[in-house]
Amino acid sequence: MTADERFAALNLELPPAPTPLGVYKPFLIDGNHAYVSGHGPLLADKTFIVGRIGAGITMEEGKAAAQQVGLAILATLKHNLGSLDKIKRVIKMLGMVNCTSDFQRHPFVINGCSELFAKVWGEDNGVGVRSAVGMGSLPDNIPVEIEVLFELA
Amino acid sequence: MTADERFAALNLELPPAPTPLGVYKPFLIDGNHAYVSGHGPLLADKTFIVGRIGAGITMEEGKAAAQQVGLAILATLKHNLGSLDKIKRVIKMLGMVNCTSDFQRHPFVINGCSELFAKVWGEDNGVGVRSAVGMGSLPDNIPVEIEVLFELA
Amino acid sequence: MTADERFAALNLELPPAPTPLGVYKPFLIDGNHAYVSGHGPLLADKTFIVGRIGAGITMEEGKAAAQQVGLAILATLKHNLGSLDKIKRVIKMLGMVNCTSDFQRHPFVINGCSELFAKVWGEDNGVGVRSAVGMGSLPDNIPVEIEVLFELA
Repeated sequence: MTADERFAALNLELPPAPTPLGVYKPFLIDGNHAYVSGHGPLLADKTFIVGRIGAGITMEEGKAAAQQVGLAILATLKHNLGSLDKIKRVIKMLGMVNCTSDFQRHPFVINGCSELFAKVWGEDNGVGVRSAVGMGSLPDNIPVEIEVLFELA
Repeated sequence: MTADERFAALNLELPPAPTPLGVYKPFLIDGNHAYVSGHGPLLADKTFIVGRIGAGITMEEGKAAAQQVGLAILATLKHNLGSLDKIKRVIKMLGMVNCTSDFQRHPFVINGCSELFAKVWGEDNGVGVRSAVGMGSLPDNIPVEIEVLFELA
Repeated sequence: MTADERFAALNLELPPAPTPLGVYKPFLIDGNHAYVSGHGPLLADKTFIVGRIGAGITMEEGKAAAQQVGLAILATLKHNLGSLDKIKRVIKMLGMVNCTSDFQRHPFVINGCSELFAKVWGEDNGVGVRSAVGMGSLPDNIPVEIEVLFELA
């Protein structure tokens, strides 16, 4: 199965590809690499999931938000590349969690995105290096923001 | 107009190229890429703009600080490359904002640097992917720190 | 002297190469680059140094933790490459410090790792670009997490 076929089999809905909220490009190709800007948990109605883990939302809600970030990133890839099959593999991910300073389960949260990518591109190509860390705050009080470096097929 | 000419037309003053505050290089070339370390808002007198957004300084002051970070990065590029024309384009920027946990306008702040780069290298080449996020704290209590990956011309 | 010989002369103990704490790879090769995931201060007994600078541990303890992060990264390199001589140089490091919002000496802390790498690969090749910044929180309440991009020999 191709990445597009594997994604279709998940029966998940893609949000619209996000438009920039500042002076940046959501997506850029450099040689055989595709860089994706920090994405938030964009929903189909173009609003964001909001909230800070430990101050209103739970870590399970945070993990679901990270999956939604993954879907927004897939939307950006589809919009710019036409197909998820144009991605060879995940190189690197920076997973940023908006949480109170006593929170300790950042990897659990960011797995919401990583598990999605592993389903789309497979356990090897869909999984890269990663840091999953806690921020002081995030734009619009979103719970998760993730940036990714992909290798193109 | 070249990047150097466009920068000259802005009538902005470059601070001196910053010296390292620890065991790192401010600038490094790898193939056709130039990596720039996290830079702070260095002033012409070699002091930094300091303060935390939401606890003493405003978001407008934060945006001005981000432009000053951009000027410090331009100073590093000029010092190491001789000319801003040696840069082909901005690939990636990580914009880190020192702010209280309720702050939500990180993209507005980091635009202070991004808008400067767009003026210097143009709306396409001067704008890359970006994450603009809130840190728990920054060195010397500077309000903004930005690291950048450029492609060389 | 080679990097392996220089490291041996330091008489420092490597922890076991860390296993992933989530859906990611600790190490990945892309062309002539080696990417290393965010590493924590893993000890020989497979536990982590824990604590937040400014709330229980000092900046000197933080610097020692950053050296321990460096040792964990060396363990990952040895595990995956067989020898530290396979690394040509450090390209880029992101040093993330778990500290209270009034902390200002992040570069001092991260130097604990950077000084180790400078001893192993030399003052030029062992030192790359860097950002050393303060996070809101880190996984398991570790005081330091560092991710690195290396160039392979």
